[in-house]
Amino acid sequence: MAYELHYWPMLQGRGEFVRLALEDAGADYVDVARGSEADGQGIGALTRFLEDPSIPRPAFAPPVLRDGDTLVGQTAAILLYLGPRLGLVGDAEADRIWTHQIQLTIADVVAEAHDTHHPIAVSLAYEEQKPEAARRAQAFRRDRIPEFLAWFEHILDRNDGRHLVGDRVTYADLSLFQLVDGLLYAFPKAAAAALAASPKVASLHGAIPERPRLAAYLASPRRIPFNQQGIFRRYPELDA
Amino acid sequence: MAYELHYWPMLQGRGEFVRLALEDAGADYVDVARGSEADGQGIGALTRFLEDPSIPRPAFAPPVLRDGDTLVGQTAAILLYLGPRLGLVGDAEADRIWTHQIQLTIADVVAEAHDTHHPIAVSLAYEEQKPEAARRAQAFRRDRIPEFLAWFEHILDRNDGRHLVGDRVTYADLSLFQLVDGLLYAFPKAAAAALAASPKVASLHGAIPERPRLAAYLASPRRIPFNQQGIFRRYPELDA
Repeated sequence: MAYELHYWPMLQGRGEFVRLALEDAGADYVDVARGSEADGQGIGALTRFLEDPSIPRPAFAPPVLRDGDTLVGQTAAILLYLGPRLGLVGDAEADRIWTHQIQLTIADVVAEAHDTHHPIAVSLAYEEQKPEAARRAQAFRRDRIPEFLAWFEHILDRNDGRHLVGDRVTYADLSLFQLVDGLLYAFPKAAAAALAASPKVASLHGAIPERPRLAAYLASPRRIPFNQQGIFRRYPELDA
Repeated sequence: MAYELHYWPMLQGRGEFVRLALEDAGADYVDVARGSEADGQGIGALTRFLEDPSIPRPAFAPPVLRDGDTLVGQTAAILLYLGPRLGLVGDAEADRIWTHQIQLTIADVVAEAHDTHHPIAVSLAYEEQKPEAARRAQAFRRDRIPEFLAWFEHILDRNDGRHLVGDRVTYADLSLFQLVDGLLYAFPKAAAAALAASPKVASLHGAIPERPRLAAYLASPRRIPFNQQGIFRRYPELDA
């Protein structure tokens, strides 16, 4: 049975980390909210799913993966669940937990990147928190992007220089590609400067999209372009 | 061999979620940075550990758990690792991933609670970001505390009303106790109001510290009091 991904249809967001894993593995999946209403899919199906009071284990927020009777929410938990099933993580427990630890650190950067344009409240528009966003983005560019990229560079260096864990691609590598891609979109100047000091991270970011299934995905209409609704948004004043 | 917890010695912080699990299980562990320098422990040992370039899989930040040769960082990943070993999670994969999903949602609330006093940058003091903190705290009190507590109430209700998962205490229950305890410390007025609408969450918060080993821990000097260095800080102006 196909996996079902329940996520917003108009943005990459956190769902994109799951899409990349499913696409790289060539998995059979339905991106529910992007299907047609005629097939019982679309945004209406997502809304009904999120509000369904009969679900015994409802997630706080999407993305949610359905695998038969099992529902999993929280991006990192979804990848923890999918990793072994998609062949995107090693077999040893120590490798699996380390891969997950890296994923959780990526999730931390993602949350901080989001908060550069929403430092006060998700319930307010960016335009209602611009001065605070400018301050937070400055600290993110100056301190946090370099600190996090230096850590990814260091752990790549401590491994084989090309993969985060072991000698083949895991879901964490796919997610690091997505993180760097998003940072380059949102903060082209600051991210490029930090990547110049992190050559192994830059190489990984270049190598991942050459994987055949990912190359096909990224060139397809299934890959939603970055836009001003997602986590990574290009406000030039936040990359000044 | 005893577990080693590597974490800041002067605050509860994220390490407290790990301490609660270890204490509730009666596990043999060393809280390294709180030991004596004469025994090779203390803050010096923590600093040396965090800066040790020979560690093949260094964490981005503490807490870090050592179990023999295995190091695990990221609070939720540590609990994922410890859960089965301490008998604090069910056996079925579906139960384990759901428990972890809840833990990750708790981690999200913790990060948001932290950012009420640090909405701009961790590198700045609270006093350097007070106006922004006031705005962020207002949104957190008004929107986020009620939203998150309503979700915990709902999933308790969908389960047995007393435990988050299954019919016995998991590490997620211990963590929800700690989250609520922290919210009540930092936002006594707002948290009490939200808890009045979440009676099952309030009951869980009352029941967990009655567990004998936890009661002994909480009454001991091993439990660091809440203070103005941790995640949960009492600034009356942020609970106005």
